[in-house]
Amino acid sequence: MKSLLRPVLFSAAVALAAPAFAQFAKPEDAYKYRASVMFLQSQHMGRINGQLKSDKPNLSVIAENAAILDTVNRLSFTAFPEGSDMVANSRAKPEIWKDPAKFKQYAERLNGDVAKLLAASKGGDLEGTRTSFQAVARTCKGCHDDFRRD
Amino acid sequence: MKSLLRPVLFSAAVALAAPAFAQFAKPEDAYKYRASVMFLQSQHMGRINGQLKSDKPNLSVIAENAAILDTVNRLSFTAFPEGSDMVANSRAKPEIWKDPAKFKQYAERLNGDVAKLLAASKGGDLEGTRTSFQAVARTCKGCHDDFRRD
Repeated sequence: MKSLLRPVLFSAAVALAAPAFAQFAKPEDAYKYRASVMFLQSQHMGRINGQLKSDKPNLSVIAENAAILDTVNRLSFTAFPEGSDMVANSRAKPEIWKDPAKFKQYAERLNGDVAKLLAASKGGDLEGTRTSFQAVARTCKGCHDDFRRD
Repeated sequence: MKSLLRPVLFSAAVALAAPAFAQFAKPEDAYKYRASVMFLQSQHMGRINGQLKSDKPNLSVIAENAAILDTVNRLSFTAFPEGSDMVANSRAKPEIWKDPAKFKQYAERLNGDVAKLLAASKGGDLEGTRTSFQAVARTCKGCHDDFRRD
């Protein structure tokens, strides 16, 4: 009985979730979208880190990368329609949809941290840039610890 | 002789290309970066197309998507370091580096087309939005025809 019901329940869940998927043709696209965004984020974080570890960090290079992060950050959190943790390779935890308020908090914190990083690097403030970069990295890690499977 | 020389020549080519790779740790990252960007581009083009095919295209939704394209477009053309056509799955043709002026022309044309799309959709001009969306799609296709393997 249980195994007969499961596909029906699953279909019903997918049907109910349809509006959330609306901007993606299929759940796999949502996964590919957020994986793409997160790869871009990791590359631009890496470039900023490379500057901060160098003898002479170039703040305008950092600001360019922070400006890109400022746009792409906003995209990743739009790509977690409910049920898209079932996609192959996805490491999204179901907690994302069990505690949406906490997930949203990370989104907002990240946007705030990146705004500070952008302002500090644009303003030529190296110490502020270091501090806000560490804050961004901490927010990434916090969200991954809470919402991403190992 | 030929087979003995090949690895040496290849290493030399990689060494010479090092500055171009500078912002990517390895050629595979450049490929993954541009594939990520192009996936985002295709998704946002698809969303605009969906609006334009609907009975009542929502111009502010189109403008939101055009604004994202306006940022991500600029990223794809930064991710073609010479030699990164050798990466598995890459469909980049060597013509990219044989005719860099033509490749750059596409980059500039795309930015111009997207700027027009953004302006038309922001300004509530549906016909201008349709025309400039077609121009963006034509530029994508032209670049793919010339510089992407089947």
